[in-house]
Amino acid sequence: MNNFTYYNPTKIIFGENTISRIVREIPSDAVVLMTYGGGSIKKNGTYDQVKKALKNYEILEFGGIEANPQYSTLMKAVELCRDKQVDFLLAVGGGSVIDGTKFIAAAVPFEGDPWDMPAKGAKVEKALPFGAVLTLPATGSEMNAFAVVSRKEIGKKLSFGAPPHTFPQFSVLDPSFTRTLSARQRGNGVTDAFIHVTEQYLTYPQGAAVTDRMAEGILKVLIDEGPEYVRESGDMKAAANIVWAASMALNGLLATGVVTDWATHSIGHELTVLHNIDHARTLAIIWPGMMKVMQEEKRDKLLQFAQRVWDVRAGSEQEQIEEGIRRTEEFFNSLQVPTRLSDYDLGEDTIDKIIENLKDNGFTALGEQKKVTPEKVRSILSHRL
Amino acid sequence: MNNFTYYNPTKIIFGENTISRIVREIPSDAVVLMTYGGGSIKKNGTYDQVKKALKNYEILEFGGIEANPQYSTLMKAVELCRDKQVDFLLAVGGGSVIDGTKFIAAAVPFEGDPWDMPAKGAKVEKALPFGAVLTLPATGSEMNAFAVVSRKEIGKKLSFGAPPHTFPQFSVLDPSFTRTLSARQRGNGVTDAFIHVTEQYLTYPQGAAVTDRMAEGILKVLIDEGPEYVRESGDMKAAANIVWAASMALNGLLATGVVTDWATHSIGHELTVLHNIDHARTLAIIWPGMMKVMQEEKRDKLLQFAQRVWDVRAGSEQEQIEEGIRRTEEFFNSLQVPTRLSDYDLGEDTIDKIIENLKDNGFTALGEQKKVTPEKVRSILSHRL
Repeated sequence: MNNFTYYNPTKIIFGENTISRIVREIPSDAVVLMTYGGGSIKKNGTYDQVKKALKNYEILEFGGIEANPQYSTLMKAVELCRDKQVDFLLAVGGGSVIDGTKFIAAAVPFEGDPWDMPAKGAKVEKALPFGAVLTLPATGSEMNAFAVVSRKEIGKKLSFGAPPHTFPQFSVLDPSFTRTLSARQRGNGVTDAFIHVTEQYLTYPQGAAVTDRMAEGILKVLIDEGPEYVRESGDMKAAANIVWAASMALNGLLATGVVTDWATHSIGHELTVLHNIDHARTLAIIWPGMMKVMQEEKRDKLLQFAQRVWDVRAGSEQEQIEEGIRRTEEFFNSLQVPTRLSDYDLGEDTIDKIIENLKDNGFTALGEQKKVTPEKVRSILSHRL
Repeated sequence: MNNFTYYNPTKIIFGENTISRIVREIPSDAVVLMTYGGGSIKKNGTYDQVKKALKNYEILEFGGIEANPQYSTLMKAVELCRDKQVDFLLAVGGGSVIDGTKFIAAAVPFEGDPWDMPAKGAKVEKALPFGAVLTLPATGSEMNAFAVVSRKEIGKKLSFGAPPHTFPQFSVLDPSFTRTLSARQRGNGVTDAFIHVTEQYLTYPQGAAVTDRMAEGILKVLIDEGPEYVRESGDMKAAANIVWAASMALNGLLATGVVTDWATHSIGHELTVLHNIDHARTLAIIWPGMMKVMQEEKRDKLLQFAQRVWDVRAGSEQEQIEEGIRRTEEFFNSLQVPTRLSDYDLGEDTIDKIIENLKDNGFTALGEQKKVTPEKVRSILSHRL
């Protein structure tokens, strides 16, 4: 178990009909910028609820933050904030809106080119305070200080984070906001949360028993509740547990005391950049190949995963490991999430492009042991044709 | 799953040789009062390490905070703080020192009689900032805003908490500080953490799958690592996991979305007040009786506990429930923690006194369903003779 620092000051306000509580969290004299995406919050009633809760505030709005939020879009919001002296941001949406809002919050007081934050790791000394109202459980952005932003024109999708400045001050997690989500959004969300856990858990034994047990518990919840949630039955027990599991999956706790992987994400990001595949779906494509190819390095944890998470007990250790991987891929498919490049009509020729793009971002080897070399990436992707 | 608010801003600095980092957390111009207990920190080297880390600070000291910290002792520290204009407290010790320091922190700026905070739930509007260096994993006080204080002369042991004011700003969790702990302190610590989890988990099904899985995971870690830790083998993997498990057991996460019990604690406190039995040991006495007597109310969760935590699968449901309770009592005994009143030469006559004391504190019924009536308490204690 490694030394670690854990700090997470985001206040979680969880449950149905809790949105009115945000007035206790935002200074009453604040000029608030409400950020959102393509307008689904107007259809599902969240927009109205937020406006009602903040009726005594001076509120500006910035809609149109897209999936994989774009630098060019976000910079328009930065200008607006500087112009209108906004002093509190409220992100209403899913991971893309919250990620974009983190970038805006840090960029407003940033001196220099804000793209340097993700591109060059430029030091962020402050940020506008902000909160979030989550409408789509998936990324965990509502309870961490990290964000991914994209710049289409130069083919980049990069992450940045500046804790403690870029933690949401609060996040409202109302599971009833999931009622209007499509099966696709639900399946993606469960898959995204699942792979956030495995990126931290499926490495090698590190003696971190507490962290392992928590990771296994979150995975079991996603497996137990995911299918019901994706069936859109309106079951609020399933929705509530998926919402809380997705936040717990990436709030820092599952990284306590361990070295983490994230190679699946790095490769997946390139699939999104090149082919505009939903983030979670890129992960579901890469993951089974990653586990098969990196099986030797991850052997002990893959066996623990098969036994503790999937309750696999029959067969040799090798058979158990394979069964764990097989059941996981089957689980993604059961959520209506495809797991093959061919499902997107992609073939051999995309593999070279991905490796090229990764190298262009300075990649020599990925993963918790830096053993995912370009050759391994080729092998992983070849498995996924 | 109930609505909840979760907020925990304590920064955890975890690992060996991390104590020097506290200088980043305490303002350099602060007048610091270092609080501690009976002096064990001078024998085990912690005192010297803290003094070295804070060599550039103005430091005052207040030692002698006893187990079950006493109001009269703590009020001396309050006077000292007011006199010397202390503006930061650093608790170096176990749960009693940290609890006592929380009381001091809140009492210093309190207008009126500070005993009103625990006795009358008087509103606490502010507190001195403070941090902790944990030397004994058990109570979880290092990562929550709650404290228990005692007033021997009137036979009271009462809890209070004033989040966010009484959260430690940081806590250093260095597992090597456990090296000099006795087997008794270790066994008590594991037992205390275990029952903190069950007080939140062993109620009735509340649909909180994430919370349940985390609770079960923490219990499994205590079961897996506790015996090695109590053997004093010096195994730092076991110690590190026990330290982190004890903090996780009572940092608020295991209460998310659920109604909690705490009846075992309420009764146990009276055993400490009357007979000066170590806190954890009172819990180990009460717990098996509580589970047996409240079996009907807790039936579903006791079965889940037996199956998921103890992997009991054989026999009828009733037999599985009983096996889970039996194994837990056996586990406490394996940690050298006795579980009977007779182990302390106590008999029938103590039962009346406990019920009388509880009534004196306003008790009519305890537990998550308020079904632990005075008659049930009599029955629970009769089981433990």
